[in-house]
Amino acid sequence: MKIETVRGGLCAVRGVRAYGIKEGHNGLALIEGQGQAVGMYTASKIKAAPILFTKRQLERSEGQIQAIIANSGCANSFTGEQGMRNAEKMAELAADSLGVDEKEIAVASTGPIGKQLDMELIERQLGDVVKGLTSEAAGSTTAAKAIMTTDTFYKEQAIRIDTDNEERVVIAGIAKGSGMIFPHLATATATMLSFIYTDARLSEEIQRASFEDAVANSFNMVVVDGDMSTNDLVLLVSTGQGGAISEGDFKEGLNFVCKELAKLIARDGEGATKFIEARVKGAASVADAKEAAKSIVRSPLVKSAIFGERPDFMCGRIIAAIGSCATVSDVDPSRIFIGLKGEDKDKISAVKNGEFMDLSGVPREVMKDKEIFIEVDLGMGESEATAWGCDLSYDYVKINSG
Amino acid sequence: MKIETVRGGLCAVRGVRAYGIKEGHNGLALIEGQGQAVGMYTASKIKAAPILFTKRQLERSEGQIQAIIANSGCANSFTGEQGMRNAEKMAELAADSLGVDEKEIAVASTGPIGKQLDMELIERQLGDVVKGLTSEAAGSTTAAKAIMTTDTFYKEQAIRIDTDNEERVVIAGIAKGSGMIFPHLATATATMLSFIYTDARLSEEIQRASFEDAVANSFNMVVVDGDMSTNDLVLLVSTGQGGAISEGDFKEGLNFVCKELAKLIARDGEGATKFIEARVKGAASVADAKEAAKSIVRSPLVKSAIFGERPDFMCGRIIAAIGSCATVSDVDPSRIFIGLKGEDKDKISAVKNGEFMDLSGVPREVMKDKEIFIEVDLGMGESEATAWGCDLSYDYVKINSG
Repeated sequence: MKIETVRGGLCAVRGVRAYGIKEGHNGLALIEGQGQAVGMYTASKIKAAPILFTKRQLERSEGQIQAIIANSGCANSFTGEQGMRNAEKMAELAADSLGVDEKEIAVASTGPIGKQLDMELIERQLGDVVKGLTSEAAGSTTAAKAIMTTDTFYKEQAIRIDTDNEERVVIAGIAKGSGMIFPHLATATATMLSFIYTDARLSEEIQRASFEDAVANSFNMVVVDGDMSTNDLVLLVSTGQGGAISEGDFKEGLNFVCKELAKLIARDGEGATKFIEARVKGAASVADAKEAAKSIVRSPLVKSAIFGERPDFMCGRIIAAIGSCATVSDVDPSRIFIGLKGEDKDKISAVKNGEFMDLSGVPREVMKDKEIFIEVDLGMGESEATAWGCDLSYDYVKINSG
Repeated sequence: MKIETVRGGLCAVRGVRAYGIKEGHNGLALIEGQGQAVGMYTASKIKAAPILFTKRQLERSEGQIQAIIANSGCANSFTGEQGMRNAEKMAELAADSLGVDEKEIAVASTGPIGKQLDMELIERQLGDVVKGLTSEAAGSTTAAKAIMTTDTFYKEQAIRIDTDNEERVVIAGIAKGSGMIFPHLATATATMLSFIYTDARLSEEIQRASFEDAVANSFNMVVVDGDMSTNDLVLLVSTGQGGAISEGDFKEGLNFVCKELAKLIARDGEGATKFIEARVKGAASVADAKEAAKSIVRSPLVKSAIFGERPDFMCGRIIAAIGSCATVSDVDPSRIFIGLKGEDKDKISAVKNGEFMDLSGVPREVMKDKEIFIEVDLGMGESEATAWGCDLSYDYVKINSG
């Protein structure tokens, strides 16, 4: 099989039309595409109305959906019964506009917590969005822009898979997320939203298994600030209008799309000046590797050291972060290796066999890049995992205090 | 019983002498006082040499100690076998200077991770410190200053308890800690160090039970940045040279001292401009209340909102923080109350029965103070807990990136 990045975003998927508009903080996106949907939802104990509502919709419709309606500017979270009625109203309005069944509409929201939606605004915006629906690339782009909040760029990814059997499958997604990013999506976190479509012909079991696997290794491995949102939602919809594909090939493609979108969220973390990739290998289990990798990209001290381009501060803080992992099996410091690397530099050994190398010769050089790669070998086993994040800058504080 | 704050720090405890010196980043403190010691140690999976060493010392000596030697400027963490030999050497040097048994010396270190101690420096400084040992108040103060790292003030607390039986007991402690503060001290986190002495006559069981209880409700409820240290250590030593006291009275006194020291650490958090106290009541269990209270003071978004004096940003972020608690029982948003209060203002109701109040009338007024009190009522039960922290400021980033 061959994977190729293609243009067009969501609209590269056969059967999908989209459009979005943004007025100040308030945006509305509509994605139309009949198909089989699976969702993963925030693990927060306080779930926003659209989360509870969309989960129920997918149960009612046995996963069949016609469209996703998503607004930015208000999270419709912590909004009580009125919030649930408004989520339902969003679905009704979208269903009416498209002439489809109300139960086949998924709803998502992002923005401040604790305020009610302005339903008049949504109804007016929806009128314009429906008129704009298109299968041209601009449809996906405008939808991706409409769901942005503190995001500085829109997030879109599309690939075409050519299978060995000469079948052609497209997987594409849009995403948003910049702050309050610490997703724990459980069969079912920031607010991060991502809507992924594919035209692959798939069984629901393969779709679901591939989706859970891909989300676990992508969105759930991104940390901007360590604050989990009440609104995180990822949906995967298959229209079935494209080619047949093996489970292995589909998984590989879906993993690619989800990881690229997840990395875009890390790159656009609030105030970020640098992207961080932390790979932990040699762990006793994948769970250990994941916890350790996430602890590194979550640590405010590691993030500050990277912002300051201080390799000398960084290693001790990486060690402390690994040590703090509650569920990681015991580690043997003398087996630990830590390597650092900028985007196109050779790897610098920072810790070897538990001993700190003298980095005074290469002080800030390796840290000048916009992309910092940290590789840790725990020397305890064969498992590995990668997490993504960004540095902690003055701008993070400014954005969130101003 | 009556509790009164007294002067003198550690040296207010009968049987205790202390002294410390600080030269640039390098400080050394010695506290001499024969007694029964109990310790609690960092829960980090990577424990510094002095943590492992002191734990073993207390086992060897059955808890009898003569002195504590503690340095700042080097954590002696992630230092392999050489690190263990150096911790041992510190104990030997202290024992020789004081003419006591080497196994009855506790050792603590704080500073950067990954470098070896300068034993020549420690030996030279110890000579001066031993000469300076005194039971005057200056002994405690100099020791408290010697163990400072990024701390901006020294931390000391002493109380005298007059029991109903006219017995007199002193409990006193010193502490350090400013960054890498997220302690999980287990009967067994930042580096925070605290050395507490009492002259109360106590059984070891009551001493240990009171200590574990006090640490759980004080140091373990402080969060500056959420980074756990490899070096956290709290020791409680009873010299037995004072009065007899009931378990209840001792617990009350020890809790008071530990909480005051813990709050000083929160007040002196790296870059802190405001002190935060988060009290969660109406929880289904104490564990729930603790997790929820800590999640609030740990949240970078809540901390940034407090730095920016933005009550309007804050409540949604408090809600998200509570929702993110992995082990908290399910909460019912409609039962949640949130109140805010500055140091001497009336409480402002920010959330009532799950509904956000309009705070536009009292925008930043309540947040101007240096002390912000957050009170959350989950409405789920009768349990409560309090956590302490500080805001996230530009200076936090500066201190840790510069």
